[in-house]
Amino acid sequence: MSKVKLGVIGLGNIGRAHCKNIIEGKCPEIELVAVADTNSSRLNWLDENHQESVVRFEDADAMMDSGLVDAILVAIPHYYHAEYAMKAMKKGLHVMVEKPAGVYTKQVREMNEVAKNSDVVFGMMFNQRTNHIYRKAKELVSSGKYGNLRRVTWLITNWYRPQAYYDSGDWRATWSGEGGGVLLNQCPHQLDLLQWICGMPVRVHAFLKYGQWHNIEVEDDVTAYMEFENGATGCFITTTGDVNGSNRLEIQLDKAKIVIDKTDLSVWEFEMSEPEFSKTNKAPFGGPKYELIEIETDGKDEEHSGVMNAFAGAILRGEDLVARGEEGINGLMLSNAMHLSSFLGKTIELPFDEDLYYEELQKRVATSVRKVGGNDVVADTSGTY
Amino acid sequence: MSKVKLGVIGLGNIGRAHCKNIIEGKCPEIELVAVADTNSSRLNWLDENHQESVVRFEDADAMMDSGLVDAILVAIPHYYHAEYAMKAMKKGLHVMVEKPAGVYTKQVREMNEVAKNSDVVFGMMFNQRTNHIYRKAKELVSSGKYGNLRRVTWLITNWYRPQAYYDSGDWRATWSGEGGGVLLNQCPHQLDLLQWICGMPVRVHAFLKYGQWHNIEVEDDVTAYMEFENGATGCFITTTGDVNGSNRLEIQLDKAKIVIDKTDLSVWEFEMSEPEFSKTNKAPFGGPKYELIEIETDGKDEEHSGVMNAFAGAILRGEDLVARGEEGINGLMLSNAMHLSSFLGKTIELPFDEDLYYEELQKRVATSVRKVGGNDVVADTSGTY
Repeated sequence: MSKVKLGVIGLGNIGRAHCKNIIEGKCPEIELVAVADTNSSRLNWLDENHQESVVRFEDADAMMDSGLVDAILVAIPHYYHAEYAMKAMKKGLHVMVEKPAGVYTKQVREMNEVAKNSDVVFGMMFNQRTNHIYRKAKELVSSGKYGNLRRVTWLITNWYRPQAYYDSGDWRATWSGEGGGVLLNQCPHQLDLLQWICGMPVRVHAFLKYGQWHNIEVEDDVTAYMEFENGATGCFITTTGDVNGSNRLEIQLDKAKIVIDKTDLSVWEFEMSEPEFSKTNKAPFGGPKYELIEIETDGKDEEHSGVMNAFAGAILRGEDLVARGEEGINGLMLSNAMHLSSFLGKTIELPFDEDLYYEELQKRVATSVRKVGGNDVVADTSGTY
Repeated sequence: MSKVKLGVIGLGNIGRAHCKNIIEGKCPEIELVAVADTNSSRLNWLDENHQESVVRFEDADAMMDSGLVDAILVAIPHYYHAEYAMKAMKKGLHVMVEKPAGVYTKQVREMNEVAKNSDVVFGMMFNQRTNHIYRKAKELVSSGKYGNLRRVTWLITNWYRPQAYYDSGDWRATWSGEGGGVLLNQCPHQLDLLQWICGMPVRVHAFLKYGQWHNIEVEDDVTAYMEFENGATGCFITTTGDVNGSNRLEIQLDKAKIVIDKTDLSVWEFEMSEPEFSKTNKAPFGGPKYELIEIETDGKDEEHSGVMNAFAGAILRGEDLVARGEEGINGLMLSNAMHLSSFLGKTIELPFDEDLYYEELQKRVATSVRKVGGNDVVADTSGTY
């Protein structure tokens, strides 16, 4: 095959953005052949965008069984990600899943099991991994030349959302519709990048505020503390309530400090690693010398279309994905652990009891109230993810 | 009196720095008339600095009873701050106390009671309150024009200390000698500024690491979460282990964001307060407009000598202090609450049980081991506090 025949499941905000990328020619090895959405009125969007030839389905199963598609992109509410991904895998279709991998790890673990026993290409839409700044940070930390991780702090509060956002879909920000708030909808990117660059913590203690800044059921304000195997600590702070929010990631290593402030990367190299300095130095107020160094990156940030192009390359030529589907569980584990810590008011050791998490979540789903008068707005999300 | 006759108790690092300021003429209304230190060899420093006329005492009580001094400066290990301050107050001497106010609030509460019943001037050495940047932040937050506090984050990790620092005195970084680590020795400034600018939190949950980066008994790594009465949250992260550490304070208000990064102050004003915007806006991805505004300050940062000069002005002419002695308890309450949270592994509501804190501290003091082979180095601390 010369092009991957893609079927998109879900024509909401992000599904449309993906279709647009293909229509605009940003994914030359992908052909948009079909789209499925249970809300048939949304399919009109294809006509508005002169895509009369794209086949429409109200039933995703029918699309997957149609023989028209080689691969599918799952862009529906989080609860259904794993379910449709597994269906596709079992039908021998390649799958790209929008973040998060799912709502609870128990579900995602099952998806990963199915993936292991199938030979399709399985990718996760972690588009922020394509960013040259984060790739460089990953490279520097992983190289080992700067020693161990000591501290990571991420103040990621630039996910501002007004009440109108939450009112734009009755599933939004409900336990039954989304299963979480800022951790599950906005932060899967950062939680993935955090574990991708720094590795997985071994325990988490989180403080979540539910409906702090909005009239919603789920969390819109989070402060989470983490500990890593080697004793390093981390702090992750996020919200959808801050105007002009921050996006500042600081990574402290034995022999370097890395700071990413929005799109700026700064790296300071120390003359000597801290443990070595402290062991040999005699001056009470001394400290290792350090300097800001020049860092070159390739400057690329291909975002969603980059992830899709790698997906096509993986299908057509066995090339590497931006993010393997199986890795989606890691960031979700962090997210679930933060929720569980807040639910139980205690520190959660990883891996945690996934059945317990599921039960705790179900308690909240049971009393969840879909917003009355909620509508179903599709908005222009350019530059918001 | 035309000049305040000052006696300094303690000629260690900080005591010498204060004497030097006076000797160098930075405190024109203060005359250094006497110094007391139990370690008589330290008193030779006065000769080295051509202060032959300054009267020396090995016993601070004798100095206070000598009739030579109007006021004293307490610059001895933390445990003795309250004790000597109270002695001075009872003798009718004015008192300036180095930070922290004490080691545990129970002790400081007693000191404040004695102060209430005496008519001496009682000041606390919070020299960072003289900084124009923090004064401006205090002014902006207190003005009320930007609405309520929503979030405060302080990453204050630029207190790097090598092992040699801790080895420079056998009392350093021991439960019996200092009663705490970075929270008690380095951070009283920031804990005071935090409460001075943002107000006191109502609860604290802290994660402390003891001897994480150094061979010491006490904490050298702290991540603390806070909640305020109105639901605002805070995070305070500090350590003495990070090379090229950060000092970044972010304050999020309803209608403005204030960022202090080391010596830079940035203020963004929002066109509309967030709660008002969210209530009226209809666009799912909208947000209030904001702009970086010009902020003028007086540029002054008179540090220790500024605090001492205000102290002299208070004694001579009833002028305002930089920090009233009674306010020292606030930052210490935060510090103690963080320790107590870590000791008990739970969230601490403020005000906490001060007897319980004292008991918990005593347990640690009981098993505290003074460093073997510890010496008693006095170091040049210029620019380190």
